[in-house]
Amino acid sequence: MSLDPSKEPARGLLLTALSNIRIVLVRPIYGGNIGAVCRAMANMGLSDLTLVDAAKSLDLQEARKMACAAQPILNARRESASLAEAISDCSLVIGASARLGLYRQHSQTPRQWSQRILAAAQANRVALVFGPEDNGLSNTELELCAQLIQIPSSERYRSLNLAQAVLICAYEIFVASDLFEPAQEKSSAAASAMKERMFAMWEEALLQIGFMEEDKAQHMMLGLRRIFSRGQLSEDDVRILMGIARQTLWCAGQPPNSRPQRPAARRRAAE
Amino acid sequence: MSLDPSKEPARGLLLTALSNIRIVLVRPIYGGNIGAVCRAMANMGLSDLTLVDAAKSLDLQEARKMACAAQPILNARRESASLAEAISDCSLVIGASARLGLYRQHSQTPRQWSQRILAAAQANRVALVFGPEDNGLSNTELELCAQLIQIPSSERYRSLNLAQAVLICAYEIFVASDLFEPAQEKSSAAASAMKERMFAMWEEALLQIGFMEEDKAQHMMLGLRRIFSRGQLSEDDVRILMGIARQTLWCAGQPPNSRPQRPAARRRAAE
Repeated sequence: MSLDPSKEPARGLLLTALSNIRIVLVRPIYGGNIGAVCRAMANMGLSDLTLVDAAKSLDLQEARKMACAAQPILNARRESASLAEAISDCSLVIGASARLGLYRQHSQTPRQWSQRILAAAQANRVALVFGPEDNGLSNTELELCAQLIQIPSSERYRSLNLAQAVLICAYEIFVASDLFEPAQEKSSAAASAMKERMFAMWEEALLQIGFMEEDKAQHMMLGLRRIFSRGQLSEDDVRILMGIARQTLWCAGQPPNSRPQRPAARRRAAE
Repeated sequence: MSLDPSKEPARGLLLTALSNIRIVLVRPIYGGNIGAVCRAMANMGLSDLTLVDAAKSLDLQEARKMACAAQPILNARRESASLAEAISDCSLVIGASARLGLYRQHSQTPRQWSQRILAAAQANRVALVFGPEDNGLSNTELELCAQLIQIPSSERYRSLNLAQAVLICAYEIFVASDLFEPAQEKSSAAASAMKERMFAMWEEALLQIGFMEEDKAQHMMLGLRRIFSRGQLSEDDVRILMGIARQTLWCAGQPPNSRPQRPAARRRAAE
């Protein structure tokens, strides 16, 4: 949930847009794939699923198993006798096709489509149409899709599993919606002055334990600065490194017997 | 295959990079998922699969079924007794985790990671590590992954199916590699002069068939220009539209009986 209240109205619009996006599976064969489609939809914030002329032998138990916690989407699915019926209320209809042939040259990738789909879905229904596992959409079905989407894939194995194809399209739309808030380090990047204090403490500690002589110290410290600059250090990171230097200094000043005993398990692991 | 020979050396480097990326599945349970992982890898140009401590009861027949044409990857898989062994030759090890907790705040998304993974994989092996279907990677296993990856997903259902998680990571790397060449219209965008000739032909035809009077023509043509400017027209598109106007003009000049008969099937479909 966004913590920024100013983002809430935009968030509402985006959730509406996602709810206006319909996944249409034409003549699907395997229940497991349908369940996996449901889970992918739930993972990416979609919920509207329509099956067109699904196989009579569809294994719904397998579908429920693969749907896992997305069974509500499976249960709420609609069934249509024809593709025309399934998309009759959609203003933008995009068909997925792995093949590229005559009249398919205007295909775009899911990433190219994502913003346009989100924009259209704020006011109207949008359908993403996927064909059966074995042959994809027929030319007659593709006629009903004014637009085409093609998923980037290796020239050595172009054709994705049905649920995988749905996932990539849904994922690109979800990422474009910006609803996901990536992990953020809670600790800020450490500023130079703080890092300099840390390096001074390490220099003192490393001299104290006899790791280096005074005349080699500058050279060694350049190496250490390089190591600790390979990536950005947070303030928390620098505090941990300061603590190590501080404890090293303390320990170096104690007679051996007064040092804390390491617990046996950790010692064994370290040896 | 790229048609641009200047791209070939870069292409070779990228294919090498993809071959250096290892997918590691830790304690996987379901054969079907492993097969789906193989197919996703093949779709995205990856080939190096290692299983760590896989379930003894693994259903390899189900794995082969879901792998489809990617069975060579399944057959070439390596099996390791431990995660440490599986990644011992990898210089960059990234663990996938849906959870975000202590020490996981430096997680990045597959898109954020993709370029760095490709760069590292040009010279060294890179491992992407995925945990078992039920519980994900343990903390002890995550200790072996200096880096973390988190896939964007809905806060209402965070956890992706194992093969779906592998697919998203592999897809982002494949897209970042730029090896995929999206569909390109072979026909150029039509230039203004060509479109003006087309509009002139339509105006003449629409006047000729009595669709509009001279005094309404300019107004109507503005509407038609708007319709034909909603999206970019290619030269092929404009040639089709010119052909319609030309045939309309010709037909309007013929006595009814001399017009070509429409085939019965198309007539019925149009009615």
